[in-house]
Amino acid sequence: MDSRRSSKSLNERRSLRTRISSNPAPYITRKIGTFDILDEESLSLIERSADRILSEVGIEVRNDPVSLKIFKDSGAYVQGERVRFETGFCRSVINNSAPSEFLQCARNPARTVKFGGNSIVFSPAYGAPFVSALDIERRYARMSDFNDIIKLAHMSPYFHHSGGTVCEPTDIDVSNRHLDMVRSHILYSDKPFMGSVTSEQRARDTLTMTEIVFGKDFISENCCTMGLININSPLVLDGTMLGALRAYSSANQCCVVTPFVIGAAAGPMSPAGTLAQALAEVLAGVTLTQLVRPGSPVIFGYLSTGLNMKSGAPVRYDETWKCFLAAGQLARRLNIPFRCGSSTTSAKLPDYQAGLETALNFKSALMAGTHFFIHASGSTEGGLCFDFDKLILDSDMLGMAERFVKGFNVDVDTLCFEDIKDVGPGGNFFTSKHTLKNYRDGYFLPEVLDSQTFEQWAESGSKNSAELAMLKRKDLLNKYEPPAIELAMKDELNDFVERSRKV
Amino acid sequence: MDSRRSSKSLNERRSLRTRISSNPAPYITRKIGTFDILDEESLSLIERSADRILSEVGIEVRNDPVSLKIFKDSGAYVQGERVRFETGFCRSVINNSAPSEFLQCARNPARTVKFGGNSIVFSPAYGAPFVSALDIERRYARMSDFNDIIKLAHMSPYFHHSGGTVCEPTDIDVSNRHLDMVRSHILYSDKPFMGSVTSEQRARDTLTMTEIVFGKDFISENCCTMGLININSPLVLDGTMLGALRAYSSANQCCVVTPFVIGAAAGPMSPAGTLAQALAEVLAGVTLTQLVRPGSPVIFGYLSTGLNMKSGAPVRYDETWKCFLAAGQLARRLNIPFRCGSSTTSAKLPDYQAGLETALNFKSALMAGTHFFIHASGSTEGGLCFDFDKLILDSDMLGMAERFVKGFNVDVDTLCFEDIKDVGPGGNFFTSKHTLKNYRDGYFLPEVLDSQTFEQWAESGSKNSAELAMLKRKDLLNKYEPPAIELAMKDELNDFVERSRKV
Repeated sequence: MDSRRSSKSLNERRSLRTRISSNPAPYITRKIGTFDILDEESLSLIERSADRILSEVGIEVRNDPVSLKIFKDSGAYVQGERVRFETGFCRSVINNSAPSEFLQCARNPARTVKFGGNSIVFSPAYGAPFVSALDIERRYARMSDFNDIIKLAHMSPYFHHSGGTVCEPTDIDVSNRHLDMVRSHILYSDKPFMGSVTSEQRARDTLTMTEIVFGKDFISENCCTMGLININSPLVLDGTMLGALRAYSSANQCCVVTPFVIGAAAGPMSPAGTLAQALAEVLAGVTLTQLVRPGSPVIFGYLSTGLNMKSGAPVRYDETWKCFLAAGQLARRLNIPFRCGSSTTSAKLPDYQAGLETALNFKSALMAGTHFFIHASGSTEGGLCFDFDKLILDSDMLGMAERFVKGFNVDVDTLCFEDIKDVGPGGNFFTSKHTLKNYRDGYFLPEVLDSQTFEQWAESGSKNSAELAMLKRKDLLNKYEPPAIELAMKDELNDFVERSRKV
Repeated sequence: MDSRRSSKSLNERRSLRTRISSNPAPYITRKIGTFDILDEESLSLIERSADRILSEVGIEVRNDPVSLKIFKDSGAYVQGERVRFETGFCRSVINNSAPSEFLQCARNPARTVKFGGNSIVFSPAYGAPFVSALDIERRYARMSDFNDIIKLAHMSPYFHHSGGTVCEPTDIDVSNRHLDMVRSHILYSDKPFMGSVTSEQRARDTLTMTEIVFGKDFISENCCTMGLININSPLVLDGTMLGALRAYSSANQCCVVTPFVIGAAAGPMSPAGTLAQALAEVLAGVTLTQLVRPGSPVIFGYLSTGLNMKSGAPVRYDETWKCFLAAGQLARRLNIPFRCGSSTTSAKLPDYQAGLETALNFKSALMAGTHFFIHASGSTEGGLCFDFDKLILDSDMLGMAERFVKGFNVDVDTLCFEDIKDVGPGGNFFTSKHTLKNYRDGYFLPEVLDSQTFEQWAESGSKNSAELAMLKRKDLLNKYEPPAIELAMKDELNDFVERSRKV
């Protein structure tokens, strides 16, 4: 252990973490309901079909004898790599121990977020190998891009979470990439973050770095990082992902277990079939987290797309919206937090299509009762590219969404009867009592979206929204200041990264 | 009466109208629910506040002694131009006679639409004095633009209605404009249309032209056109609009009674106050239609915006979404069809902002249970401009929406259990039984939105969505063919237009 890390500094760190902040809540508390697209009977049919899939077809656990043994020891029926479950077994394991809500601690305790219940958490896009912007011709992403995204997400009031692999920094060797990424989250932001999942060892490195920040004892009792565990639909859980799953769950850290079903390819073409298969996949993956460590935090993840039957490209249209809504219902019935797709688009640029598809998908996720939005902003090309201008533009939508899900009060004050009476027919409310009292925050004030008249807009250079976003981004990055961090913690982190780096 | 119009041709026209079509339904039948943002108590509070506004503040009827007399004769309390109503009076008048749903006939009977119940009807934008497109620098709209919009809406499978003043043809004198607009609807489309509301006489001219198409007897019994009656919020109903209202209602044609409340200006800043005031305004306007002719078709219209408190510009963000949802609930409680804002944006171009705002607003209107979408496509600058490319791009969203509101079935067939079993873990569904049976229409196929890979897209010229829309528009206009119309009807219409034209 690094000699500079005294027990005193650890205590100081802990006291910092528990200090109550005077800042606004670091995540959104939803006050409006969800949109339930399916009735009770339809939901039960999907659940029963998922149970049949788990008992009659089963899932395949590839290249992971450890997970196979865990499943076998729990009573599951294991034949080679195929695992089948008795009807109701997975649901019962999950119901017995998976938490319905939990906190993920941030190194700045004022930024600790809650998953589940009425909470909503936004984070930037995940996993794009490419980046683009008005002033960046589309190219492979670099570590400097990764850092910029973390900085921008740190500065934004609309991101509650720093995300994970916000882009793939392809200029760093894959065996070391996770070290630089996790360090970037810790140094350039003080919001909660996700770690690496590309191997069990890389997940363990993430956990070690998280321990450096939070202290070993603290993280054994508290969720301080998480891993995004994808399932290889249909019905395959591979050893790489499961190694990471076991690392996170055994350390009491969160797994976001997420099938990604491309309809008519990796799953049936119908929403009902897609949902039944995905539910079976989630049930198996989440069950493993609870068998590894009962009570460990876990999130019901869900992604599905349709397919353009002419081009063979995945598309996110009405079928995707419907599936998000129904998957949200299935997650609530399982009583664990929910994550699904969100601000995604097939567009290659932040053009009209990109805005349209982003909003349609995002709003579906919002109505679905999603707790964790991993792709809340920045994603183009169906996730293959991270567009910096889109990151900024989507943020305004997140700001509106925050206000939207808070609903509105109807009472004597808000009904404004006296104002309406005082103003009378044909009058105006510019200086009515309610307006004067509320004008500062009565309406959302976007940072980039333009509401000027055509003439004002033309005078200020006829800029389209990507141009306005580029200016805003440059301004933000110029103003960026890293959040405070203890020197000892920073040194220890850097030591670990350099020591672990493979050459 | 024109001598060429024989009773035989009239009968022929009628038989044409009642012929059963083999085409798909000419409007959407919604199968999913609505999103109810307010609880019973909040809705009652808004309704009671609207009642207090009507009884204690009242509405002002400007420059219209005829309407004042109608109100007075009905028992309302009239002082000068101020009209007050006893608590519950308006609601009682409306409940007694306003239809909860009705048909609007199209000259092609296969295109007759239903308003109310589970129906949804889309039409293009309304009222823009300007037009723009990638190849049209923003300028005042012309009659040729108007015709092009009607043609494009006629060709689109996603518009059920031809709209009304889809743009303002400023090259035609205001005193004659309505004649050319109504004729354009009738000649270039066979979908239902709206008429003129800029004066009582122009509304009457609309009715005469509608009679030429449908026959006098037929239109006295059936809704064949409609007028968009705006209220001058706060609480003013002016004589011009009321003249048109009386013309349409007395002819048993539909009025869409629509307050347009700009919060903190034409109404209170809070959603609750905005809704209470707008409800009072709708109640007064709709009551007048029922006093003029009990049972005449009428629609509960609703538009509201927030205000950018820095620039003073109207904005349509979270407050607008909330108000759409709550207004839909108020309309359902009043049991008459509902119309609210939809695909609107403050953007000056079809850029990212335009797509984002359009989709966010549209989807709110969709979840609100809106029956009639007047601005379903094409609108920019908050309604001041009609963008041709946006018309095309929005259409794809309408296609997705149509599929979305139909929901999905969960049954043995759609759960695809046998397919999932046959394919097994790690397989693919490209040729599974369900896919082969459903691949043609299992997923929505957009006309413009691009889902190619980056490489395919780059090879085909790296076109943004506005460029793709422009190509599609030009292709459509090249292919346009006017719907069949009887020569006698066309001649009679042209005669009327020329005879009525003021020089």
